[in-house]
Amino acid sequence: MSTDNLLKQVAFIKEIDKLKYIQRKTKLFNSDRPENDAEHSWHLAMMTIVLAEHSDKPIDVLKVLKMVLIHDIVEIDAGDTFMYDTSKNHTNTEEELLAAKRIFGLLPTEQAEEFIAIWEEFEEGSTDEAKFAKSMDRLEPLLQNTSNNGGTWAEFGVPYQKVYDKKKAIKHGSTSIWNYAENLINDSVEKGILKK
Amino acid sequence: MSTDNLLKQVAFIKEIDKLKYIQRKTKLFNSDRPENDAEHSWHLAMMTIVLAEHSDKPIDVLKVLKMVLIHDIVEIDAGDTFMYDTSKNHTNTEEELLAAKRIFGLLPTEQAEEFIAIWEEFEEGSTDEAKFAKSMDRLEPLLQNTSNNGGTWAEFGVPYQKVYDKKKAIKHGSTSIWNYAENLINDSVEKGILKK
Repeated sequence: MSTDNLLKQVAFIKEIDKLKYIQRKTKLFNSDRPENDAEHSWHLAMMTIVLAEHSDKPIDVLKVLKMVLIHDIVEIDAGDTFMYDTSKNHTNTEEELLAAKRIFGLLPTEQAEEFIAIWEEFEEGSTDEAKFAKSMDRLEPLLQNTSNNGGTWAEFGVPYQKVYDKKKAIKHGSTSIWNYAENLINDSVEKGILKK
Repeated sequence: MSTDNLLKQVAFIKEIDKLKYIQRKTKLFNSDRPENDAEHSWHLAMMTIVLAEHSDKPIDVLKVLKMVLIHDIVEIDAGDTFMYDTSKNHTNTEEELLAAKRIFGLLPTEQAEEFIAIWEEFEEGSTDEAKFAKSMDRLEPLLQNTSNNGGTWAEFGVPYQKVYDKKKAIKHGSTSIWNYAENLINDSVEKGILKK
């Protein structure tokens, strides 16, 4: 609780402002304005609070919130990778690990270690909290694309099967949200905004 | 946990996307780009996680996170009021209460009541959680304005005493953060970016 800790924490708080400049491919709801990573992270946090009751397993909501709030901070150095980009690996690349160490490393040591561990737990995706956090991360762009007449699916020609394969991770967090999401995907095919 | 709940929750999740269009007067760090309410709320949530150890009183961090994540949602209907606007009341206006009822009212009843209560607790500012949440809400623009050569203080001619009077609410949440903030304000006067 020293002044030294506070100065390090303020340096971190200033550095992560850069997340507001990292643009995603996905657009806001009913819009052609790209979403940035800070807005996206806020939305996932809200979704976590609102939808936590649908988790199949009991979850530590505070931990899930930490995960979704920090999960994209590494993109300040490593950039955003489009979900359906086949030329780039998406999980825990060396570039992202270096970014985690540099950015979270601005914090006091104990806190830096906690944040890196939480980010790694999210990337790994094997705990109940990480599974639910990943459900939220998959659900938001699904809701956005369906509100945008296909959105990035149409823009980048992503076919049904690829979408389905990515989105089914939602099932690992919540059966009821997955049932809803699966219906949305099927409806999108029927409406012609997702090609089979 | 019914499908009916989930449909209401999704309607709410879509509605709050509009927070990304509500611009604040304050600019991003070292920038002339205005911050929007979703980015601001994300940043306060990060600050809460990082700075919670400096709270003078033990706080329920999950509750503070809920407060800062939702505290500006009423502005979707009521708009942002500039901190130093003297023509408008800032706390719990009738317009904001109507907005809270409409927007949180999209959620299932029990959740709507919880969110309205949390928002009112923040506005009231008397619990330890609300005091800490308000410290975060006062600290972020202070950090931004000092990074922006006076920022909105310079832009709107806000003098030292008004800034000091608003910022001292930080003291109710954390003595150590207030000590840091008070130094920043005094330094700003010495640097000539805040007029006495």
